[in-house]
Amino acid sequence: MALWSGRFEEAAAPVTQEFGASLPVDRALYKQDIAGSIAHATMLAAQGIIGQEDADAICEGLKAIEADIDAGAFVFDIADEDIHMAIESELTRRIGAAGGRLHTGRSRNDQVATDTRLAAKALAKDLMEANLGLRAALLDAAEKAGDTVLPGMTHLQHAQPVLLSHHLLAYVWMLGRDFTRLSAAFDAADLLPLGAAALAGTTYPLDRRMTAGLLGFAGVIENSLDAVSDRDFLLDLEYACSVMAVHLSRLSEEIVLWSSQEFGFITLSDAYSTGSSIMPQKKNPDFAELIRGKTGRVVGDLVQLLMTCKGLPLAYNKDMQEDKEGALDAAKTLAQCLAVMTGMVSTWTVNADRMRSVMHRGHLAATDVADYLAKHGMPFREAHAVVGHLVLEAEKQGCDISELPFETFKEASELFGRDITKALDLDAIVAARTTEGGTAPVAVVEQLRRARARYLVDENAVKLLSPVIPMGVPAASAL
Amino acid sequence: MALWSGRFEEAAAPVTQEFGASLPVDRALYKQDIAGSIAHATMLAAQGIIGQEDADAICEGLKAIEADIDAGAFVFDIADEDIHMAIESELTRRIGAAGGRLHTGRSRNDQVATDTRLAAKALAKDLMEANLGLRAALLDAAEKAGDTVLPGMTHLQHAQPVLLSHHLLAYVWMLGRDFTRLSAAFDAADLLPLGAAALAGTTYPLDRRMTAGLLGFAGVIENSLDAVSDRDFLLDLEYACSVMAVHLSRLSEEIVLWSSQEFGFITLSDAYSTGSSIMPQKKNPDFAELIRGKTGRVVGDLVQLLMTCKGLPLAYNKDMQEDKEGALDAAKTLAQCLAVMTGMVSTWTVNADRMRSVMHRGHLAATDVADYLAKHGMPFREAHAVVGHLVLEAEKQGCDISELPFETFKEASELFGRDITKALDLDAIVAARTTEGGTAPVAVVEQLRRARARYLVDENAVKLLSPVIPMGVPAASAL
Amino acid sequence: MALWSGRFEEAAAPVTQEFGASLPVDRALYKQDIAGSIAHATMLAAQGIIGQEDADAICEGLKAIEADIDAGAFVFDIADEDIHMAIESELTRRIGAAGGRLHTGRSRNDQVATDTRLAAKALAKDLMEANLGLRAALLDAAEKAGDTVLPGMTHLQHAQPVLLSHHLLAYVWMLGRDFTRLSAAFDAADLLPLGAAALAGTTYPLDRRMTAGLLGFAGVIENSLDAVSDRDFLLDLEYACSVMAVHLSRLSEEIVLWSSQEFGFITLSDAYSTGSSIMPQKKNPDFAELIRGKTGRVVGDLVQLLMTCKGLPLAYNKDMQEDKEGALDAAKTLAQCLAVMTGMVSTWTVNADRMRSVMHRGHLAATDVADYLAKHGMPFREAHAVVGHLVLEAEKQGCDISELPFETFKEASELFGRDITKALDLDAIVAARTTEGGTAPVAVVEQLRRARARYLVDENAVKLLSPVIPMGVPAASAL
Amino acid sequence: MALWSGRFEEAAAPVTQEFGASLPVDRALYKQDIAGSIAHATMLAAQGIIGQEDADAICEGLKAIEADIDAGAFVFDIADEDIHMAIESELTRRIGAAGGRLHTGRSRNDQVATDTRLAAKALAKDLMEANLGLRAALLDAAEKAGDTVLPGMTHLQHAQPVLLSHHLLAYVWMLGRDFTRLSAAFDAADLLPLGAAALAGTTYPLDRRMTAGLLGFAGVIENSLDAVSDRDFLLDLEYACSVMAVHLSRLSEEIVLWSSQEFGFITLSDAYSTGSSIMPQKKNPDFAELIRGKTGRVVGDLVQLLMTCKGLPLAYNKDMQEDKEGALDAAKTLAQCLAVMTGMVSTWTVNADRMRSVMHRGHLAATDVADYLAKHGMPFREAHAVVGHLVLEAEKQGCDISELPFETFKEASELFGRDITKALDLDAIVAARTTEGGTAPVAVVEQLRRARARYLVDENAVKLLSPVIPMGVPAASAL
Repeated sequence: MALWSGRFEEAAAPVTQEFGASLPVDRALYKQDIAGSIAHATMLAAQGIIGQEDADAICEGLKAIEADIDAGAFVFDIADEDIHMAIESELTRRIGAAGGRLHTGRSRNDQVATDTRLAAKALAKDLMEANLGLRAALLDAAEKAGDTVLPGMTHLQHAQPVLLSHHLLAYVWMLGRDFTRLSAAFDAADLLPLGAAALAGTTYPLDRRMTAGLLGFAGVIENSLDAVSDRDFLLDLEYACSVMAVHLSRLSEEIVLWSSQEFGFITLSDAYSTGSSIMPQKKNPDFAELIRGKTGRVVGDLVQLLMTCKGLPLAYNKDMQEDKEGALDAAKTLAQCLAVMTGMVSTWTVNADRMRSVMHRGHLAATDVADYLAKHGMPFREAHAVVGHLVLEAEKQGCDISELPFETFKEASELFGRDITKALDLDAIVAARTTEGGTAPVAVVEQLRRARARYLVDENAVKLLSPVIPMGVPAASAL
Repeated sequence: MALWSGRFEEAAAPVTQEFGASLPVDRALYKQDIAGSIAHATMLAAQGIIGQEDADAICEGLKAIEADIDAGAFVFDIADEDIHMAIESELTRRIGAAGGRLHTGRSRNDQVATDTRLAAKALAKDLMEANLGLRAALLDAAEKAGDTVLPGMTHLQHAQPVLLSHHLLAYVWMLGRDFTRLSAAFDAADLLPLGAAALAGTTYPLDRRMTAGLLGFAGVIENSLDAVSDRDFLLDLEYACSVMAVHLSRLSEEIVLWSSQEFGFITLSDAYSTGSSIMPQKKNPDFAELIRGKTGRVVGDLVQLLMTCKGLPLAYNKDMQEDKEGALDAAKTLAQCLAVMTGMVSTWTVNADRMRSVMHRGHLAATDVADYLAKHGMPFREAHAVVGHLVLEAEKQGCDISELPFETFKEASELFGRDITKALDLDAIVAARTTEGGTAPVAVVEQLRRARARYLVDENAVKLLSPVIPMGVPAASAL
Repeated sequence: MALWSGRFEEAAAPVTQEFGASLPVDRALYKQDIAGSIAHATMLAAQGIIGQEDADAICEGLKAIEADIDAGAFVFDIADEDIHMAIESELTRRIGAAGGRLHTGRSRNDQVATDTRLAAKALAKDLMEANLGLRAALLDAAEKAGDTVLPGMTHLQHAQPVLLSHHLLAYVWMLGRDFTRLSAAFDAADLLPLGAAALAGTTYPLDRRMTAGLLGFAGVIENSLDAVSDRDFLLDLEYACSVMAVHLSRLSEEIVLWSSQEFGFITLSDAYSTGSSIMPQKKNPDFAELIRGKTGRVVGDLVQLLMTCKGLPLAYNKDMQEDKEGALDAAKTLAQCLAVMTGMVSTWTVNADRMRSVMHRGHLAATDVADYLAKHGMPFREAHAVVGHLVLEAEKQGCDISELPFETFKEASELFGRDITKALDLDAIVAARTTEGGTAPVAVVEQLRRARARYLVDENAVKLLSPVIPMGVPAASAL
Repeated sequence: MALWSGRFEEAAAPVTQEFGASLPVDRALYKQDIAGSIAHATMLAAQGIIGQEDADAICEGLKAIEADIDAGAFVFDIADEDIHMAIESELTRRIGAAGGRLHTGRSRNDQVATDTRLAAKALAKDLMEANLGLRAALLDAAEKAGDTVLPGMTHLQHAQPVLLSHHLLAYVWMLGRDFTRLSAAFDAADLLPLGAAALAGTTYPLDRRMTAGLLGFAGVIENSLDAVSDRDFLLDLEYACSVMAVHLSRLSEEIVLWSSQEFGFITLSDAYSTGSSIMPQKKNPDFAELIRGKTGRVVGDLVQLLMTCKGLPLAYNKDMQEDKEGALDAAKTLAQCLAVMTGMVSTWTVNADRMRSVMHRGHLAATDVADYLAKHGMPFREAHAVVGHLVLEAEKQGCDISELPFETFKEASELFGRDITKALDLDAIVAARTTEGGTAPVAVVEQLRRARARYLVDENAVKLLSPVIPMGVPAASAL
């Protein structure tokens, strides 16, 4: 019978056991659960609520259990429902009555909230580090790209030439925003619920600030009902993962495009490619596709929790047991995606010649030709129309606008002079976009400097985070 | 090295192994994979594409592997990527070169589509049966409810009295529609992709109709590109699960409400309730809450796959590897929810007296009083206003409209006669709603008859489904 | 004051008026509302519940109001809350007391369900027709494509050559499944709720079958509680739209890819392209992108309604007022997407030469070379490895596998003979895939025949649908 | 013809006009568009890129157009595609060639990003203020609640008594977190994209910092590709709205429950209730239900944009035009929900007697009885079991645990003394939970003080936000 079965006359229906148990999911939080219990017992003893001897027995017992789980030597029994019961009942088996005193002034409601917040902090921190890892790889790739130019696109049509480094830096800034969201998720989790007990606080003279300090929480939750029913911090984490996944899906799409036969802009390393079971020539960008595909998974996790929380009255409801699986899945998914993407970016080969060789296909100079006219006094809207006709003429002749003879320009407008050639030169076009944030080499060098500075700030921020209890990794984890 | 590694010079990056492997998910489809391979080999031999001896060796080898997995005696290695490679490479280890002939005229693309469709059929059929199980329980509960009356509600406010059986039958009809959706999902899956190979068909003279027949498919997919890139059948299954989950969430909400101290309409069996770790008095409707909470999970699965499929060009893309986990999860979740709900409904105690005793709180007779006036010639809109004022008067007196003295009625309208008492009698009110689909006992008896008839039709439909290959359940499944 | 204000002593707070009103959305259903009221009044008179004179006045009055709305001459007042109240109160203003009898035996709950089902039928039918329109365009494009070959892709990598017609037919089959889903949504809506009244049925001797017949419903809903609280039919419609949107997003992605400078496989008509405000050369596939982008919108609509319905107790709850906007939006969005896609497909230019000219980039013949070896006795897995090394050799030489000298083949395997050239010829490769559903011209011709046959079946199915009341289109619709 | 039509030879297909136009949505941003253009023109003149006379004409012309739109005197033409073209083409009609110079060094891509960010700032600020409004109402309600006690619930079962003020404060803290998310969304939007032009920056010597200052932006976006393709700030806003909607759905659920006949804990004001068209007695909590229902809508908006952004390559793609409608909808929905909820909370009547009168139904004292035993030396787990049996006994006797005779306690455990009565007294139970965040009056008074302090901090934060350009509200807005 369960630990709560005093008033029950009938055993649980077998069909409910697997259904109701959260152990297959929440056993991943064993280190958080044990740390939480040790801190609670330590505080209980310091406040004189339980004896120091009992507290010592509890702490020793819990450490031994943790070591057993670490070593893969602990047998979980689904009849224990959840990790809290699994550990507590084992503890009582090992140390006797003292084990029964651990749950004094505590409920599973505030215990599970504490464990989950500790886990959220660990996951958020891991993701912040993985986020920095990918940013470092992209910053290096951007630096390495030098003056490599590729056709910048809108609507997947050639638009204007841009530096590859500029293009890659766009993702660095996206990831910088993702870091900010992860950081907010960390902060949201960084408050102690313990002491809320079931929902109303307890009659024991707990010292919540002490427990918070022992566990590395930055503070305590101010309202006991909120403490047991708040899952915003998981939503914040899943949301941060969702947007980051969208960003990675965009980069993945470009990797898939760029490594296609049609683009040929990059070649992925063999180590980050796969083959086909039937087609011997295939070298597929599988991992970029998988990262792109996993965006749906992470957003699905977010939708799940938002929907589950809809319309729940205060305080704790069992619906909320469905909170952890999605969050663990989203965080694990992103951690993998970031690591794989880091590897992919670090090992690809950039085909700079190919990028340059396709630059005559899309009239990339057209805007600068229109700007030329505008700078010679023609209203921009009129200049746009003149150049539009030049493009049409080039299309009919099967050439790029830069390949039209000077006479054709002159016929289109008297304002054109021989210096139009500069407006037609791709390197000159790139070099001319010197405004802040533009693609000119001089502007990109400055941008790279700022992006590296921002990286250092964030790297330092990770060091300044409040302490976390890392997720446990039991020894031999069977497939 | 993987089976596809001929053109690769570098080994896969370790970080990609767990990331790219689908084995932890798709090994659940081992029976489907083996059945598919046996059918394929049988057909290859029948068409003279491979020798009969090879085919025999393949089939024997596969059956032996299946028996080993059944028995929990097969060690999966994540280096095998997926269940297809795991089985095929083991087969080749066991039977040698003949194993290498199995993949003739086949690609993983059409193989995985075949396995997944076989699994979808099995899952849909299981859900159809579980759906029938809950409908049977509700039909029995409705029959057992007899003339029990409860306050029918809109906006969770007392509206008009209804029969409990009528209320329960509403869910039977919902589940009937769910059955229809499951049936559509089954049909959507019931076509053979094998023969499409990678994407374009094959150069071998396959007999796709023969393979379809061997595997129990109703037909073959008409276009090879579509065969390897279609996952609509999984969407259909997840959608059917999503709507069914929404229906169950509504019943769950009512179970939670009805077993609250405030309502007290039903008492759940101890076998379908749980307690609290701290509050000894608690008897919580945990499983109803969990079912309600899992709605988000199933809808999250649906969102995941819809999002993953968005914007994928033809034909197969690796994003689609993310298709199975959500579908398996949604189907398993619903199968559990249906089973648990069936148990809950079958074992609850209806507190008919309590239901009746609260019937004087919400002026449930008001509509019939207005109808009384309307039948005596007052336009309904006017009658509505007159009765509105009577309700207001009753509220001020702290009583139900049925408890107002006759004089008050008479003052409100001269049309009231002494026979207004009939319009105030709750059983008479229920009995008067005799139109088709109404709550009068006579109408509900007829409705119950039709609902049972529809049940029999659906029960028979399950028997007429094309053959399925049930999901495997390996022996000792560790937690 | 509202028509329901009898028991209220205080007026509605101004802030609630716009918030609570559904009129801006549901006025789109005025034709359905009026048709429903006319049918109801006709039945009431036929059953002797109201006088024939009243019924006549009601019907005439409603027709006049409809004509005014059609003509854009009806002024809606948001104080009327919803289209039902707007029409009914105007009716009473026009015809006096008789108007007050229209609502006899009816509630807004069954009235709104009836209107919504009538609208869902109209929307589903429109979509079925638009679906046929796009299929016709694709069938024509497939037929017109003749023997045009393009590189079939998986993972966006060249895989095997396929016929363009085969590629386009894949979408025809997807759309065929969409038609099935739309048809299921139509059927789900095709039942009459009227007669359920608020939730329990009525005390009036309504003839629900008569009303159903007058409105073109195939039957009546069997349970009054279900009648007012079921919105499955809208979910079915939104789901059908969601999957269809995913299909269109895939075709859109291909259009965007194919019209890029890198692919150049098609050229969109100017009529289905747009330019840039700044870059004169741009010709963007805006509409394909918009269709792709709108997938999110439609799935968002589906998520909205699933989430809104979660956890609602029986019977009607105001949450459900949020049902129509999303469904109308999803249906309108898809109707537009289908129409625009039909135009795009019908007017694009296929650059067959370009498609063919890129066919030497991806070793498209590799599978057939492996099949060659397998047919000469080598186990396929071994053949795969041999060809993988040939591909690697070709990559190193910077050529396609088909361009390697015969000696290189011979070195790789003694099994190669001079007839390997046939396995290297792209047209021969296509022509060899003759199995059912394969890409060989002979198989595609048969496939096209079947797809056209299926089209005719569906075209006929639209004609056999039960009658619908088309959505109203008021005259001058301001922006 | 459109302003970009120079290279086009064919007019747009009529079917694309409504489909492609964003004017019906983005005209809501006219004030942002005009402010952006005025700032751009002012900077262009300051930099000598256009003449001061032209800039003056542009600014005057734009202000006149704004006044006309304000007054409802501007006729929008859908042929203008979007608000940018609508205003610019009207400007050129009014002031001639100077109008054509406005777009110098600018593209619609950076223009639309600028307008959208300005709008996001305005919407976020409005929501921050509305959030404060509801918090103020809840704080007042909490203060007014005094010592009112209600049965605190978990699983909707009576758990432990809590102060109503404590319960209401839980929502104040939730809304405090929502404020933080809104603030993050504001900051995310608070950077200028203008100067990015189409995607690569411009060749004109723009002063982006000056433009940022004129528009009230806190800084500039550092990368031009990111500037035109980033929509994170809208996701952040929609996410903040989503979580806030979930919070409001929880409060709404409680309002619906509490105003039911079964609970009767509160009575809503008539001003925030509605009636029924058929049932004269109904007084429905419509607006609480609508708020609950609208949660789905807002989450649907979030899903839409996440899905739309998935897999888009850099830089701008037309899919992103689908960004504004959902964000405007989510923000408007939440603004309404917050206002309506503020009114509801401010005007409801708390039925304190009713709350107290139901307190004997759920053995609310059970935890304290167990704590009593634990404090007398019994391990808590054992005490839990003892009290469980007492509850069972009380259930059998049909009474509350607090109503059992002392003898029964004594029989259950020798540890019970006469002072057990204190553990059974509900007010004493509440008063005993004095730990930080607990429900004891003394703790709640402190909590209220902190919540008010936090409110003042946030109120001040709104004042310190960077300047915003409020959304326009044209005069007569037709329904």
